[in-house]
Amino acid sequence: MSSCSSDLAPLLGGVANSSAAADYICNQFTDAGFAIDTTYLLFSAYLVFAMQLGFAMLCAGSVRAKNTMNIMLTNVLDAAAGGLFYYLFGFAFAFGGPSNGFIGKHFFGLKEVPQTSFDYSNFLYQWAFAIAAAGITSGSIAERTQFVAYLIYSSFLTGFVYPVVSHWFWSGDGWAAAARNAGESLLFETGVIDFAGSGVVHMVGGIAGLWGALIEGPRIGRFDHAGRSVNLRGHSATLVVLGTFLLWFGWYGFNPGSFNIIFRTYGPSGSIHGQWSAVGRTAVTTTLAGCTAALTTLFGKRLQTGHWNVIDVCNGLLGGFAAITSGCSVVDPWAAIICGFVSAWVLIGLNKLAAKLKFDDPLEAAQLHGGCGAWGIIFTALFAREKYVNEVYPGRPGRPYGLFTGGGGRLLGAHIVQILVITGWVSCTMGPLFFALHKLNLLRISAEDELAGMDLTRHGGFAYDYHDEDPSAHGGSPRGGFMLKSSPTPVKPKANQTATANQV
Amino acid sequence: MSSCSSDLAPLLGGVANSSAAADYICNQFTDAGFAIDTTYLLFSAYLVFAMQLGFAMLCAGSVRAKNTMNIMLTNVLDAAAGGLFYYLFGFAFAFGGPSNGFIGKHFFGLKEVPQTSFDYSNFLYQWAFAIAAAGITSGSIAERTQFVAYLIYSSFLTGFVYPVVSHWFWSGDGWAAAARNAGESLLFETGVIDFAGSGVVHMVGGIAGLWGALIEGPRIGRFDHAGRSVNLRGHSATLVVLGTFLLWFGWYGFNPGSFNIIFRTYGPSGSIHGQWSAVGRTAVTTTLAGCTAALTTLFGKRLQTGHWNVIDVCNGLLGGFAAITSGCSVVDPWAAIICGFVSAWVLIGLNKLAAKLKFDDPLEAAQLHGGCGAWGIIFTALFAREKYVNEVYPGRPGRPYGLFTGGGGRLLGAHIVQILVITGWVSCTMGPLFFALHKLNLLRISAEDELAGMDLTRHGGFAYDYHDEDPSAHGGSPRGGFMLKSSPTPVKPKANQTATANQV
Amino acid sequence: MSSCSSDLAPLLGGVANSSAAADYICNQFTDAGFAIDTTYLLFSAYLVFAMQLGFAMLCAGSVRAKNTMNIMLTNVLDAAAGGLFYYLFGFAFAFGGPSNGFIGKHFFGLKEVPQTSFDYSNFLYQWAFAIAAAGITSGSIAERTQFVAYLIYSSFLTGFVYPVVSHWFWSGDGWAAAARNAGESLLFETGVIDFAGSGVVHMVGGIAGLWGALIEGPRIGRFDHAGRSVNLRGHSATLVVLGTFLLWFGWYGFNPGSFNIIFRTYGPSGSIHGQWSAVGRTAVTTTLAGCTAALTTLFGKRLQTGHWNVIDVCNGLLGGFAAITSGCSVVDPWAAIICGFVSAWVLIGLNKLAAKLKFDDPLEAAQLHGGCGAWGIIFTALFAREKYVNEVYPGRPGRPYGLFTGGGGRLLGAHIVQILVITGWVSCTMGPLFFALHKLNLLRISAEDELAGMDLTRHGGFAYDYHDEDPSAHGGSPRGGFMLKSSPTPVKPKANQTATANQV
Repeated sequence: MSSCSSDLAPLLGGVANSSAAADYICNQFTDAGFAIDTTYLLFSAYLVFAMQLGFAMLCAGSVRAKNTMNIMLTNVLDAAAGGLFYYLFGFAFAFGGPSNGFIGKHFFGLKEVPQTSFDYSNFLYQWAFAIAAAGITSGSIAERTQFVAYLIYSSFLTGFVYPVVSHWFWSGDGWAAAARNAGESLLFETGVIDFAGSGVVHMVGGIAGLWGALIEGPRIGRFDHAGRSVNLRGHSATLVVLGTFLLWFGWYGFNPGSFNIIFRTYGPSGSIHGQWSAVGRTAVTTTLAGCTAALTTLFGKRLQTGHWNVIDVCNGLLGGFAAITSGCSVVDPWAAIICGFVSAWVLIGLNKLAAKLKFDDPLEAAQLHGGCGAWGIIFTALFAREKYVNEVYPGRPGRPYGLFTGGGGRLLGAHIVQILVITGWVSCTMGPLFFALHKLNLLRISAEDELAGMDLTRHGGFAYDYHDEDPSAHGGSPRGGFMLKSSPTPVKPKANQTATANQV
Repeated sequence: MSSCSSDLAPLLGGVANSSAAADYICNQFTDAGFAIDTTYLLFSAYLVFAMQLGFAMLCAGSVRAKNTMNIMLTNVLDAAAGGLFYYLFGFAFAFGGPSNGFIGKHFFGLKEVPQTSFDYSNFLYQWAFAIAAAGITSGSIAERTQFVAYLIYSSFLTGFVYPVVSHWFWSGDGWAAAARNAGESLLFETGVIDFAGSGVVHMVGGIAGLWGALIEGPRIGRFDHAGRSVNLRGHSATLVVLGTFLLWFGWYGFNPGSFNIIFRTYGPSGSIHGQWSAVGRTAVTTTLAGCTAALTTLFGKRLQTGHWNVIDVCNGLLGGFAAITSGCSVVDPWAAIICGFVSAWVLIGLNKLAAKLKFDDPLEAAQLHGGCGAWGIIFTALFAREKYVNEVYPGRPGRPYGLFTGGGGRLLGAHIVQILVITGWVSCTMGPLFFALHKLNLLRISAEDELAGMDLTRHGGFAYDYHDEDPSAHGGSPRGGFMLKSSPTPVKPKANQTATANQV
Repeated sequence: MSSCSSDLAPLLGGVANSSAAADYICNQFTDAGFAIDTTYLLFSAYLVFAMQLGFAMLCAGSVRAKNTMNIMLTNVLDAAAGGLFYYLFGFAFAFGGPSNGFIGKHFFGLKEVPQTSFDYSNFLYQWAFAIAAAGITSGSIAERTQFVAYLIYSSFLTGFVYPVVSHWFWSGDGWAAAARNAGESLLFETGVIDFAGSGVVHMVGGIAGLWGALIEGPRIGRFDHAGRSVNLRGHSATLVVLGTFLLWFGWYGFNPGSFNIIFRTYGPSGSIHGQWSAVGRTAVTTTLAGCTAALTTLFGKRLQTGHWNVIDVCNGLLGGFAAITSGCSVVDPWAAIICGFVSAWVLIGLNKLAAKLKFDDPLEAAQLHGGCGAWGIIFTALFAREKYVNEVYPGRPGRPYGLFTGGGGRLLGAHIVQILVITGWVSCTMGPLFFALHKLNLLRISAEDELAGMDLTRHGGFAYDYHDEDPSAHGGSPRGGFMLKSSPTPVKPKANQTATANQV
C-alpha cells in the first residue's frame, strides 16, 4: 500500500486523468471488498464446519453407548468423503453454470476457479453445507445400518442428490432460483426463497433419512410386543447438549453467512442500511426462532410428560433453527418468534405421529429436519417482507413476497412446488437406493450384531473404558477402551473388582 | 461496485464537484467501515455465545452426575429465555436512550433498530452478555434449587436487574458511564471504566448467586456433623476442562469484542496506532491475566494441598479473566500480570472464607465472579494508563486515570461507588426475590429429592447410560439413559451382569 | 469518519493539493487494511487457540481414565505457562530482529510493540503456535512422566527451543527463511518454504516427544512378556473425535491464518487474484489433504485389521493436516490430495515400525507430527507451484520452486537441510534435557504410581464419578470425583450397591 500515494497523486488534480483516478480509487475499494467478504465468508464456513462436530456429539449422545464409535465414524466420514466428492464433482453439479437449469457442468476439480463469481472460499462454504445434509440422514438410520451401506448412500447423497437440488434453488442457472441470472424468467415470477436451505439442506437430509428409516424398520426393542413405543434413548445427555450448542454456534455461519458478501450497499452509500445490517438481522431472526421453539417445547412437553426435559428442549431448539433457515433474511424478528412457536408444535406432533406409525428415527431427524424444514418453507411464503425481499434479491422490482405481508400467493405457490419437487426428487433417488441395498442384504445389520452393538462387532471395541486396571494382573490382557473383545463372559469375582475400581 | 468508476470519474478533476467527489469517496469508506465492524462485532458475539456452551460444560462437570440434566437445562434456558426477554424489553432497558440515566425506554422489540447508533449486531452482542450473567448465578445455587424458582429469578435477572446495571455504566445516558454522551457530566469527572464488565456482568451474576446460595443454605453433606468442609465435587473433570477452555475461547469475544468497532483511527490516519491495535492489546492483557492467575493457583494450591489440581487451576484461570475484564483495554500487558496474580489469591482467600462460614457455592461463582470481579474493578482504578484511557474513551481531555500510573484517586472513587451500587442494587432486588421464593417454599427442593438427584425426580432420568443391555432381555423395559426409573431397587444378579457389561 | 468529507473536499479539485488528496485517501485505505487484517489475524489466532482445547480432549480421550487429569493439566499449563514465557522472552527470541540470524533479541515483554511490522495481534497469533508445539510433546510422554519434569521441559521448549527454530525459518532475519529481508541472500537461493510449520511446529514437537518417549521407555504393559505389542488404548473415543474435530476447526486458523494479512493485491488491483483468494485456496488444500488421509487410513486399516476404526481415521486425518501445513499456500488442490494419501501411509508405516522397535508414544505424536511433518516438508519441495510461490513470497523473481512442477532441486535441497537442522537442534537441546531429568530421577514416575494412575497419586483423585451416592450414608465420606481416595479396598456389599446405582 506504500506505493498508493505515489500512484494516485498524479492522477488527481486534473480533468485529463479523472477517469484513471476514479479507476484507481474504485479498484482499491474492490480489493477491500474482496478482503472483507472473504474474511466474512471463510469464518462463516468455519462455523458451518463446526456444525459437523455438533452433529457428531449430538448423534453420539443420542445413541446407546454400544453404537457410539459407529455413528461418530459416519460423521467424520461425511466431512472427509464429502470433501473429496464435492471437490471432484459435487460443486460442479451444484454451481457449474452455465447449465441447462437441472445440473451444473463446470468447475470439476475446481478447474477455472477462482473467478469473479466463484472463489475457493465459496467452494469451502458450500462443501460445509453439503456435508451437513449427509449428517442429517445418518441420524435417521443410526444403530442398525451396515457401514458399507452408509458409505454408498452418503457418497451418492453428497456427490449427486444434494448438489442437484442446490443447483435448482441456489445457482443462478437453477430453474427455481429466486436469484436467477438476469434475463431468465422466475418460477411464478418469484422463484423459491430458500435463503439458507430449510429445503435444500434440511428437507433433503430429512427425506433421505425418512426413506432409510422406513425401509430398515425400527430398532429391536423400540416398540414392545404390545406395539407400545419404548424409549431407547441415548447414553449421554451431556453430549446432546454439547452438540446442540455447537450446532447453534455453527448456525450463525449457516444463516447469516449465506449472504456470501457483507460489503454491499442497499440504496444510498454511507448508510447503516446495507447488507451488513441484514446480516445482523438474520442472526437475530435465527436466534429468536430457536429460542422460542425451545421455550415452547419446554412447556409443551412439561404438560405432556410431567418433567422438564433438556433433550426435548434441545431438539425443539434445533427444529426452530431448521425452520427459520429458509426465511431468516427476509422476515422481521417478530415473525421469527411465530416461526419458532409453530415449529415446536410441528415437531411434537410429528413425533407423536411417528410413534403411532411405529416409525423409528433415533435422532428424530426426519421429523425435525424434514418436518420443521417444510414448515419453514411455508412460513417464508407467508411472512417474507417486501423491503427485505427486494434488498436481498435485488434487480426484480415488484416481485412477489409473503402472503400475510401483502405480497400475494405466488411465493406460496412456488414454495409448495419446492416442497413437492424436493420430496419427489429425494424419494426417487434415495428411496430406490435404500431399497436396492435392502434387497442385496447390504442395508441392515443382523439382529445379533444389533444387540451386541456395532462398535464391538464392526469398529474394534467399545467406545469407553472408565475402569483402569493393571493389565498385567490379568495375564497381559488389557481392558483396552477401543479393543475388540471376543469374550464378554461375566466372571463373578471380577464384577466386584470392577465395581470397586469404579467407585474410586 | 462496478458502477463505482463511472459514478466517481465525473466528480474528480474539477473544483466544481470536489465536494461531491469527497462525499462519494467518504461514503464508500463509511460502507467499508460498516462491513468491517459488523464482521468484527458479529463474530465476537458468536464467541461470547460460545461461552454459554462453556458454562454449560463447566457447570455439568462441576456438579454430581445426578444433577447434570438439571444444570444443563438451566444453561440452555438462560440463552433461550434470555433471547426472548432481552428482545422484548431487556435491550430497551439497557440501551434505550435518551433516558433518565437510570433505565432505558426505547427499542422495545427492536423497534426503530437499525439506526446509526444501534444495529442488530449490537443487540446480538449485548444479548450474549446478558445471558452470561444469568449463567453465573445458576452455578451458585446448583444441585438444590427448584426449577420453577430458576425460571423466575433467571427471567427477572436477565430482563430487569442486569439491563438496568448495564444502562448505568455502558449506555451513553447512564449516570455513571465513562463514555457518557457529550455535554453530560461524568461521575467524579471520570465515570466508571468497566470496559467489558467485571462489575456489570460478573459482579452482578456473583452477587445474585451469593444471595441465592446464602438463603438456600449448603447442600446436604457439604459440611459434616463436626462442621468440617466436605468436598462434594463434580462428576467429570473432562467437562470442567472443556468448559474452561471454551470460556477462554469465548472471552476473546467478550473483552476485545467490547470495542464494538475496530475501524477507528487514533490520531493521524495511516498509522498502526488505531483501535485495531488496541483490540489486539486487549486480547493480550486478557490472556496474560488468565495465564498468571492459573500459574499462581497451581503453585499456591500445591503448597496448601500437596497435589497439582487441574480443577483449581481452571477456576483460578477464570478468576483472572473475570478480574481483567474491567480494565483489559486501558492497562499495559505487564499490569495484567499483576491483576492475575492478585486475583488468584483473592479466589483462594474467599474460598477459605466461604468454607469457614459454611457458605456453599458449587461453582465458586460468588467468590470467583463476585470477588475477582470486584478486585478487577479496583485494579483498573489503580493501573489504567493515561494514553489508553484517552484513546478508548476519547473526547474528554485531561480525564482521570489510574492511581498508581499518576492519574489521581478520582477513578478509584468512582470504582468504589460502582462496587457499592452494584452490590446494593443486586442485593435489594435479587435478595428479596430469593427470600420470597424461600418463604413460599418455591426455592429449595426437598431433602429426599436432593439425595436422589434432580435428574431422576424432575428431569426424566439420569444423564448417562454406559451400560448397553438388550431391553428385551428384561421384559421390554429398556435401560433408557434419560428415562424416569421408578424402581431403582438393587437386584443382586443384575449387579454382576451390569458390571460385566461395563468391562467390555 | 464524519469529518472525512470536510477534510477531503478542499484537497480534491486542483493540481495544487493532489498530493495531499492522494495521501488522505491512501491513508484511509491503510486504516481499512489494518482493521481488516487485524480482524482476520485475531480470529485466526482464536481458532489456533481452540486447537489447545482440541489437544486437551484428544489427549484425554487417548489415555486411560486414571491419567486424565494429569494430561489435561499439562494442556492447560502449556497455554498458561506458555503465555507468560512467550511474553517475557519467547516472542523476542523468535521475532526480535534485527538479529544475527540465529536468535532474536528485541521485544522482550512486548517492549516497542506495536510497530508497523509487529502488532499485539501478531504476538497472540505466534503464542498460539508456540503452545501447540508443547502440546504435541506432552502426548508422546503421557501416562508415565513426573509433573515436575513436564514443567521443566515444557518451559524450555516453549521459551527457547521452539522460538529459535521459528526465528530461523519465519523471521525476516532468519538464516533459512524464504521471506528473508530484502538484500539478504537466501539459503540455496530459495530459503525454506515452511508456510505454517510442518517443520517449525510439528517436527519440533514430534522430535522432542521422540526423545522423551525413547528415554522414558514404554508404559508398563505396553509390550507383553513375549514382546508383542499390546494396545493400551484410551478411555473415551468420544473425546478423541471431539478433539480431532476441534483440531480440524482450529487448523483453519493455523494454515490460512498464516498469511497474517489478507488485504494484499497480487498484480493489478481490482481483481479476484489477491491474497484473499490465496487464503481461501489454502483452506481448500488443507481440507483436501486431511480428507484424503482420513479415507486412505479408513480403507488401509480396514484391510489390515478387519474393522472400521474411527480412532485410526482421526489420527490419519491429523497426519494429513500436519503434512499439508508446510506447503498449503503454494500447492494446487489436486496436489494436496497426493500429500494426504502419502501421509496416511507414512503414519501407518511408522506406527508399524514403532511397534516393532517397542517404542511407545500414547498419542502417536512422534510418528504423526514428526513423521508426517517431515513428509510434508519434502512434499512442498516437490509440488510447490511457481505462480503461487512468487505470489506468497514476492520480490525475488525467478526463485526456485517444486521439483515435479519444473522448479529444479534447490528447494528440495533447502528442505532436506530443514529436516536435518530441526532434527539436530531439537535432539541436541531436548535430548540432553530429558536425559538429565532421567538421571536425576525426575523424569519417570514409579511403577506403583503408574499402575495406580497419576490422577490418584498426584492430582487429587479420579477424573470421573458417575456414581452419585448419599455421602451421609457412608459416614460422611463423600465419593468425590476429584478427591484423593486412600483406601480403594473392595467391599463386597458396596459393589452391588454401586452397580445398582449405576443402572439407574
